[in-house]
Amino acid sequence: MRKSILSIFALLVFSNAFSQVSDSLIINKIFIESLSNGRAYHNLERLCKDVGARLSGSAAAEKAVTWTAKTMKEMGADTVYLQEVMVPHWVRGAKESAKLISGKESINLPFTALGGSIATDKNGLTASVIEVKSVEELKVLGADKISGKIVFFNGPMDPSAVFAFHAYGKAVGQRWEGPSEAARYGAVGTIVRSMTHSLDDYPHTGSMSYKDSIPKVPCGAISTKAADLLSAKIKSNKDVKVWMQMNCQTFPDVLSHNVIGEIRGSSKANEILLVGGHLDSWDIGDGANDDGAGIVHSMEVLHLFKTLGIKPQRTIRVVAFMNEENGLRGGKKYAELAKERNEKHIAAIESDGGSSTPRGFSMSGDEALKTKVKSWRTLLEPYGLHEFNQPGGGADIGPLKDQGVLLIGLLPDTQRYFDFHHSDNDVFENINRRELEMGAASIASLLYLLDKNLVE
Amino acid sequence: MRKSILSIFALLVFSNAFSQVSDSLIINKIFIESLSNGRAYHNLERLCKDVGARLSGSAAAEKAVTWTAKTMKEMGADTVYLQEVMVPHWVRGAKESAKLISGKESINLPFTALGGSIATDKNGLTASVIEVKSVEELKVLGADKISGKIVFFNGPMDPSAVFAFHAYGKAVGQRWEGPSEAARYGAVGTIVRSMTHSLDDYPHTGSMSYKDSIPKVPCGAISTKAADLLSAKIKSNKDVKVWMQMNCQTFPDVLSHNVIGEIRGSSKANEILLVGGHLDSWDIGDGANDDGAGIVHSMEVLHLFKTLGIKPQRTIRVVAFMNEENGLRGGKKYAELAKERNEKHIAAIESDGGSSTPRGFSMSGDEALKTKVKSWRTLLEPYGLHEFNQPGGGADIGPLKDQGVLLIGLLPDTQRYFDFHHSDNDVFENINRRELEMGAASIASLLYLLDKNLVE
Repeated sequence: MRKSILSIFALLVFSNAFSQVSDSLIINKIFIESLSNGRAYHNLERLCKDVGARLSGSAAAEKAVTWTAKTMKEMGADTVYLQEVMVPHWVRGAKESAKLISGKESINLPFTALGGSIATDKNGLTASVIEVKSVEELKVLGADKISGKIVFFNGPMDPSAVFAFHAYGKAVGQRWEGPSEAARYGAVGTIVRSMTHSLDDYPHTGSMSYKDSIPKVPCGAISTKAADLLSAKIKSNKDVKVWMQMNCQTFPDVLSHNVIGEIRGSSKANEILLVGGHLDSWDIGDGANDDGAGIVHSMEVLHLFKTLGIKPQRTIRVVAFMNEENGLRGGKKYAELAKERNEKHIAAIESDGGSSTPRGFSMSGDEALKTKVKSWRTLLEPYGLHEFNQPGGGADIGPLKDQGVLLIGLLPDTQRYFDFHHSDNDVFENINRRELEMGAASIASLLYLLDKNLVE
Repeated sequence: MRKSILSIFALLVFSNAFSQVSDSLIINKIFIESLSNGRAYHNLERLCKDVGARLSGSAAAEKAVTWTAKTMKEMGADTVYLQEVMVPHWVRGAKESAKLISGKESINLPFTALGGSIATDKNGLTASVIEVKSVEELKVLGADKISGKIVFFNGPMDPSAVFAFHAYGKAVGQRWEGPSEAARYGAVGTIVRSMTHSLDDYPHTGSMSYKDSIPKVPCGAISTKAADLLSAKIKSNKDVKVWMQMNCQTFPDVLSHNVIGEIRGSSKANEILLVGGHLDSWDIGDGANDDGAGIVHSMEVLHLFKTLGIKPQRTIRVVAFMNEENGLRGGKKYAELAKERNEKHIAAIESDGGSSTPRGFSMSGDEALKTKVKSWRTLLEPYGLHEFNQPGGGADIGPLKDQGVLLIGLLPDTQRYFDFHHSDNDVFENINRRELEMGAASIASLLYLLDKNLVE
């Protein structure tokens, strides 16, 4: 009796060890294939060069939908389909610019409208400028000092944050709620220091939000170098004005689409493992890092699984979400339909942190599932994947949270990300092939482990 | 008695926990200071822009020596001094080029002489080309097929190596010993595919070595795109020739210097903790990653310790080694003098892996010391430093090995490194400020821990 228990125990240990060895071999093959023959870099080049910037509601966004569906089919998805979703339609329009005016001096400031802003009058808006470092400072200054002026939000992203997204999170309130909070005290417009750690000439756009009860004012961003210049001029001269001109406009919502491609599961087809990114981008740059990288990372699982003959038990669903940048309508619609259809999502991985070398995964959800994923660390650490303790997921998969899904986010290295984010600098030329391919392999490896080893 | 043992035990546990907390605070301050007010990026800009490429034996190398000594003083080193060392003096000379000749077609190939090569005749060398993928293939082909030809070593760096240096290590034999091995079978010259994972137009130089008993032949490298083109032409046409022209020359050795700056230890001044990189670079690009980054990483400990008021017990010695690229004379001379003077080096850290985000440290030496360093992982992991298991160190500190020194190498992320290495693409513009500053803070943190917690 004792002997047979020992034998069973030995068998279990052996079988677990064997399983780990075999998993390790598969993961190694995934990385080798991605780095040697991967399609992610080529696909990203096509998305960036043939489609380019693809803001929700634009013709380019629909071109991106068509390209993605076609490419998913070519990469061997069993099924590819579109999911309808109504999205906002904001258009930048021609001619946007800003100048610093100080006495007789007039200096161009690299400038971009914030997504969602109203236009200025057609001749632009000129007003004196008051500088603040945060939304909180507005209250201290009050209407006396703010009324009739352009508020210049100049709070820099904290350089000391090791995880760069933390600095973004702390600074971005100026961009998001700054315009209405300033208008509350009578401001006639706002400009914000670009959200980047880099000191350069690129203005970075991004979304903002108007509050219903407060007058809408035009708002834009200037480059960090321009922000330093403007701040210096304000310090040395009380009479600094800014002229800003924008022709942006919001049109009625238009029909757009999430794009979905599947590898159907062999034995548990009704259980879904989702992987995705967002297909829309801002309308400047070509959305290479944000979030072209996430799209091609996600699609690459099709190439890797097909080429390596990995046949998942569960259904792998690749989702290119529409409208993360200025509405999240795609993510919300997806979760709504999943609930309606009573679909069973086990886990969802999002890649929306760029194309740099992957460092690990963030996770939110069931503790037992998270512990299970962490138990695979030894299989993933040889590929530089060490970070498993951050909470996370991604904006597009976030709405699935209340359906009990394990939400997972790829964590690429963050140091360079905001050099590119939402600017003309976010172009294909700034993507490193190997780093991108490492990210794709990391996601495919985790999907493989989730499918094979996640016993419910 | 038992109670007092327990009390002592509790005190030890408490004191250890307290020490960890206080170490954690200091390390946090080091990272904050480096990312917020660090000098590494500014220093690297000056080294790259004011000095530029600085091959051993050149006037620029001596300008680099002067700049480094001056900067170490300005950064607060207690003592700065030079260490004399004779170095090789190879000069590229004007006009180097190569062309592919196929029938009436003549195509320019982006080309660079390998460091140490002899020149061609002044009108260049023209010969038929034979392609091989490795040095081993030469033996199979033999003199019949090789004699009178230019051997084209076209073995690519293995894309599937996750740690890019492993691929370099496997491929670089073609460059290093290829010329003499080919000449052994009568080759009249060699060209090698550039050592990079990137497919582009940059030729990458690097050192090679002639064997004494074998005739010297001229040797150069062509870009990876040129290598693909040449290979395709050879496949489609038997009569492919290459013309190559080089005017390089080796002069007698000249006097140069290692540059050394110290913070004198407060209580154990005779125990040395060394940190260094190499000051020389190749003569193309501006040596930003290789190894300007290592120089400014190392010097930054002066800024960080001085600014934060960290007063080390042991002497911190910052060394800018001369001549790593084509002779290692600086490293050898340093170790020789250290032995002569009976200096006691406890540990030596080298940064010679570029400026990307740091991932950990490689180590070679005493097992107990390595275990001690690994026990600090929990203090370093919050900064993304997870890798402590690779053997390593660095070329310049390698000669200290037989003096019982713990050899440590900074491990930056490797994916982008060979895009730049030894080419015109290794310029300051390709350095990310935050990644560089993370590397400097990582080294300073480890030095702090080595000084404070390494009980012998």
